[in-house]
Amino acid sequence: MKTFEIKQFGIDSITTGERPVPAPGPREALIRIRAVSLNFRDLSVVKGFYNPNQTFPLIPVSDGVGEVVALGENTSRVEVGDRVSPTYAHKWIAGAPDRTTLYSTIGSPTDGLLAEYAVVHEDALVLVPEHLTDEEAATLPCAGVTAWHAVVAEGKVGAGDTVVVQGTGSVSLFALQFAKIHGAKVIVTSGSDEKLTKAKMLGADFGINYNTNPDWEKAVLEYTKGLGADHVIDVCGARTINQSVAAVRIGGRVSVIGILTGMVAEGFNILPIMLKKPTIQGINGGSREMFETMNRAIDANKLQPVIDRVFPFEQSIEAFRYMDKGNRFGKVSIKL
Amino acid sequence: MKTFEIKQFGIDSITTGERPVPAPGPREALIRIRAVSLNFRDLSVVKGFYNPNQTFPLIPVSDGVGEVVALGENTSRVEVGDRVSPTYAHKWIAGAPDRTTLYSTIGSPTDGLLAEYAVVHEDALVLVPEHLTDEEAATLPCAGVTAWHAVVAEGKVGAGDTVVVQGTGSVSLFALQFAKIHGAKVIVTSGSDEKLTKAKMLGADFGINYNTNPDWEKAVLEYTKGLGADHVIDVCGARTINQSVAAVRIGGRVSVIGILTGMVAEGFNILPIMLKKPTIQGINGGSREMFETMNRAIDANKLQPVIDRVFPFEQSIEAFRYMDKGNRFGKVSIKL
Amino acid sequence: MKTFEIKQFGIDSITTGERPVPAPGPREALIRIRAVSLNFRDLSVVKGFYNPNQTFPLIPVSDGVGEVVALGENTSRVEVGDRVSPTYAHKWIAGAPDRTTLYSTIGSPTDGLLAEYAVVHEDALVLVPEHLTDEEAATLPCAGVTAWHAVVAEGKVGAGDTVVVQGTGSVSLFALQFAKIHGAKVIVTSGSDEKLTKAKMLGADFGINYNTNPDWEKAVLEYTKGLGADHVIDVCGARTINQSVAAVRIGGRVSVIGILTGMVAEGFNILPIMLKKPTIQGINGGSREMFETMNRAIDANKLQPVIDRVFPFEQSIEAFRYMDKGNRFGKVSIKL
Amino acid sequence: MKTFEIKQFGIDSITTGERPVPAPGPREALIRIRAVSLNFRDLSVVKGFYNPNQTFPLIPVSDGVGEVVALGENTSRVEVGDRVSPTYAHKWIAGAPDRTTLYSTIGSPTDGLLAEYAVVHEDALVLVPEHLTDEEAATLPCAGVTAWHAVVAEGKVGAGDTVVVQGTGSVSLFALQFAKIHGAKVIVTSGSDEKLTKAKMLGADFGINYNTNPDWEKAVLEYTKGLGADHVIDVCGARTINQSVAAVRIGGRVSVIGILTGMVAEGFNILPIMLKKPTIQGINGGSREMFETMNRAIDANKLQPVIDRVFPFEQSIEAFRYMDKGNRFGKVSIKL
Repeated sequence: MKTFEIKQFGIDSITTGERPVPAPGPREALIRIRAVSLNFRDLSVVKGFYNPNQTFPLIPVSDGVGEVVALGENTSRVEVGDRVSPTYAHKWIAGAPDRTTLYSTIGSPTDGLLAEYAVVHEDALVLVPEHLTDEEAATLPCAGVTAWHAVVAEGKVGAGDTVVVQGTGSVSLFALQFAKIHGAKVIVTSGSDEKLTKAKMLGADFGINYNTNPDWEKAVLEYTKGLGADHVIDVCGARTINQSVAAVRIGGRVSVIGILTGMVAEGFNILPIMLKKPTIQGINGGSREMFETMNRAIDANKLQPVIDRVFPFEQSIEAFRYMDKGNRFGKVSIKL
Repeated sequence: MKTFEIKQFGIDSITTGERPVPAPGPREALIRIRAVSLNFRDLSVVKGFYNPNQTFPLIPVSDGVGEVVALGENTSRVEVGDRVSPTYAHKWIAGAPDRTTLYSTIGSPTDGLLAEYAVVHEDALVLVPEHLTDEEAATLPCAGVTAWHAVVAEGKVGAGDTVVVQGTGSVSLFALQFAKIHGAKVIVTSGSDEKLTKAKMLGADFGINYNTNPDWEKAVLEYTKGLGADHVIDVCGARTINQSVAAVRIGGRVSVIGILTGMVAEGFNILPIMLKKPTIQGINGGSREMFETMNRAIDANKLQPVIDRVFPFEQSIEAFRYMDKGNRFGKVSIKL
Repeated sequence: MKTFEIKQFGIDSITTGERPVPAPGPREALIRIRAVSLNFRDLSVVKGFYNPNQTFPLIPVSDGVGEVVALGENTSRVEVGDRVSPTYAHKWIAGAPDRTTLYSTIGSPTDGLLAEYAVVHEDALVLVPEHLTDEEAATLPCAGVTAWHAVVAEGKVGAGDTVVVQGTGSVSLFALQFAKIHGAKVIVTSGSDEKLTKAKMLGADFGINYNTNPDWEKAVLEYTKGLGADHVIDVCGARTINQSVAAVRIGGRVSVIGILTGMVAEGFNILPIMLKKPTIQGINGGSREMFETMNRAIDANKLQPVIDRVFPFEQSIEAFRYMDKGNRFGKVSIKL
Repeated sequence: MKTFEIKQFGIDSITTGERPVPAPGPREALIRIRAVSLNFRDLSVVKGFYNPNQTFPLIPVSDGVGEVVALGENTSRVEVGDRVSPTYAHKWIAGAPDRTTLYSTIGSPTDGLLAEYAVVHEDALVLVPEHLTDEEAATLPCAGVTAWHAVVAEGKVGAGDTVVVQGTGSVSLFALQFAKIHGAKVIVTSGSDEKLTKAKMLGADFGINYNTNPDWEKAVLEYTKGLGADHVIDVCGARTINQSVAAVRIGGRVSVIGILTGMVAEGFNILPIMLKKPTIQGINGGSREMFETMNRAIDANKLQPVIDRVFPFEQSIEAFRYMDKGNRFGKVSIKL
């Protein structure tokens, strides 16, 4: 089968490979990959920022969708012909994670899905919503589930809540969509008025351009009549954490999902943590149970992931380069 | 001020009355009532079924909305001019209820709102959503909050859940609306195809006529592909409880809100309770915190309560008679 | 290896068997059984009451403990030499159960542990607390986890709560112990003053003899100064459900765990369900996550399961007969 | 009545005062104070660190206990003769706090209890456990409730959990005691071996001297076999927050309750927040519902607050000076 692999770090190091089609063992399924979708994480993996100890060769990319084409013995959760996605944290079924379940992820340290076939344990497979195209369905395992984890599974968003999403990256757009189907109001921050307009077309109630309005937390407070938002999805990390805390209401929640502006916050204010009793919680992937519950919600609400661009399998390296340039609105998928 | 009162049980015993406008004491507000709305409970109160030990005279009706026209000393939660509703369980602020907070309700045992004015403690007042008319806003305190309590506060409805509401009474219609704004699917049962059609116009996904389909729980199982619903709003009591349990999924929830078909279930099956581990929970009114959270959600989603008919204050007795005839779709309100 | 099996229903039908020692497949472990423990369920299985569609031959008994003596390939959760218990619902890892995870139980429909060896999937194995003897550790998988599920996982018992446990069967005794280590008060009902005395030696705060005091719910109300208990562990079913509801406080909880007095309640009162808003919830086994959390608590508090009597493996049939006679206090275990 | 008051900041500015005994208004009670207890917060208030905008004169001290000696009209929650404590956040009944309920605290900005009498609204009074002396009961409203809020109400401690408490200040000692009655293991850090010994006598399972062992988080990891603790009670703030995050398990919890080492953390590591998904939550006082639930637990477990020293009312200024010297183990109370 054809693959894309890296034997050393760097986008330029991505090469095509050829491996035998793997055979499914007991309780495993052979999946013919139909589409994959790229995350910022996949870019970091390839560049060597994500996991400096990565062993090679590695087939990158965690998110994808495919068709079950063969089953190992004793497999009962899926059938040949099912359209399925592998879970990102492939051992995390449900409940509280531990080191093993949280860090056993595909695309790094173990092989991902940028290949014609993959063998996956049946416990790590979920059916995907029927109304989605392959390139849409491929976006769910990491980006979608992470947003669901933050907004729904832990954030318990409800109608009337106000949720702030930082930027228009893929987790943020999913967070926006998941908050909206639960009846919440959504504030989006972005450096681009054009993206804010697009976010409003997805349902955002209010947009803040953080270039023209760097004290965006004050705009949040103003919009919420001084109360603050119920939940801020913080994907920026070091440089926004104080603003995120300032933007939430008493007893509000900040989900820490990304570190786009750095990993270490200089001058983190602890006093408002004590005084306003917010919850600050890291979010990292999610369980199969979250994935299945999310899919049920996507199906019931006929939600559609936002696709920026689809590349054919042959142009997978171009897809990584496009991803690396930034300035997208929605996901970059690759169709096989 | 003009009132409607009862000095003995019976709709025919409702009479007009005349009382002095009450003066607000410390932390109290004088409310000029602008609209009230009738519940099945109000009918039961007047007929003597609800509280046989009721003392007289009683001004009935728990749900209403009015304008703050005067404040007692030390009042800080509301201002003159605010449009407010008294809470149904007027001492239940938040948290778990006890006997005092659960059973201190207006309209019985203490005076209700079918009068030109009422004095209410500021702790028992909430602001109502601006987009609602008075007759719409008047429907919220008991019927709306009870549905919110069941579906959201305890039921924790989420996108993709399936909720069954029995009938199209006012609690059921609110439950339908609250489930829909949270992205859930809603199944409605009714004895009337016409009402099912109306329910679908409100967002219901599926309707079951229990006259032509008395084993409605089987239709629920079929619609949910054998899994069962996540939550059944049971307003019928004795004759439907076994069906409600049969209709929910493993680990599902039955909210017991009404006893329209009786208070004692003959032949209650305990085995499925043990085997399927559903939660069966009674629901009775709700707290001020639930009311305020609900109002926020109604406002954010511009939800509109369903009004069947509005009577002028002078025709309040006719309103009770109309209520007593049944066969409505939505609330009966009275406008002052 | 030696086994005890049934080829038709009935205690008298239990016979010794001889089977080859099974070989562990991928991700499986071979366990040398060191002790098993009997549940009322095992008795029902053998008698044919539990699962009339049971296929034969069947090795009965769900609860046991043993030593890992061999591993199939790719096994990483356990090691040779570990002392482990198989989980009762062997596919239920964590989170909400479904039909498959809730009903895939050992001892029926699939083979149990009354044998010298068993092969178990590593996902269905947990380490047991070191301070327990084998015959003590063997009691945990079904009886212990069920009590933990009711009292802790769903019941969320806390210090100062009052928990009523019906009788002194094994689930009830575990419930008593788990409630006590969380700082709760425990009321025990029993038909025997001698057993009440023993229950108090285990930490029970108050005992009610339901023979001399058949309106035991009134004694609960009196002991709780009219408030009612926070939680009733109901193992009796049909004849006690109304009393259990009467015995809990407003907003309290009744866990329905057994049906010792029948499966169908005649005259189930729905009115108090509505008025007091209790939660009535069935409980059926539990997940591996519950088992592991429970073991951690047992270990931290050096809790000891109550053993009534230990039989040697050869006398397994006598153990069943002893179990069938009733009137125990604690578990009947079998040591290999 | 005699009082102690400040008219400007500083311990040396505390003076005796004389005011008329206040009269209770509607729904208020007159309390004859029997004991008060000092918090670090009271010291900060007097020194001017807590609330620079404080108006004068101010009767300091938030925590105390007294006897109801007179009632205003319409009072029903307490009776003359009841031994009660005013709540610290006197408007916070239950549920989620807002600005008003969280910041309306006694002892600053409004008068506290260092006086012979105080008038308190009945909604802000709770009965205290009978087995406690006045000087013990006086310690509960702020210090006790804050610890309960962190460990139980939000932390949901359970048997088998491991809780780390920083130091042996009063919140930490209450946290230790509340964790122990729920069956948890407790690790205490301190700069004094003598205090660690005392903490063990209160039930602590493990002590870490952070002077001889400044990387105390590593000792926590070692004690927990590399997993980390379930919950860290962080009272130090700026200099320990990174260590606290390092000390908790995946999915663990850090309660931020104090800022003894500073309000701004330089170099706050966000990466582990994302990777380990801990919950970091500020804690600030608590509701009346928490207070009542805590008292029930204290009563059921006959828990005794730790008293370092009791001063007579006349020596209240000496009590503040003693408090200011530090190096206590337990509370400083003042008996009237």
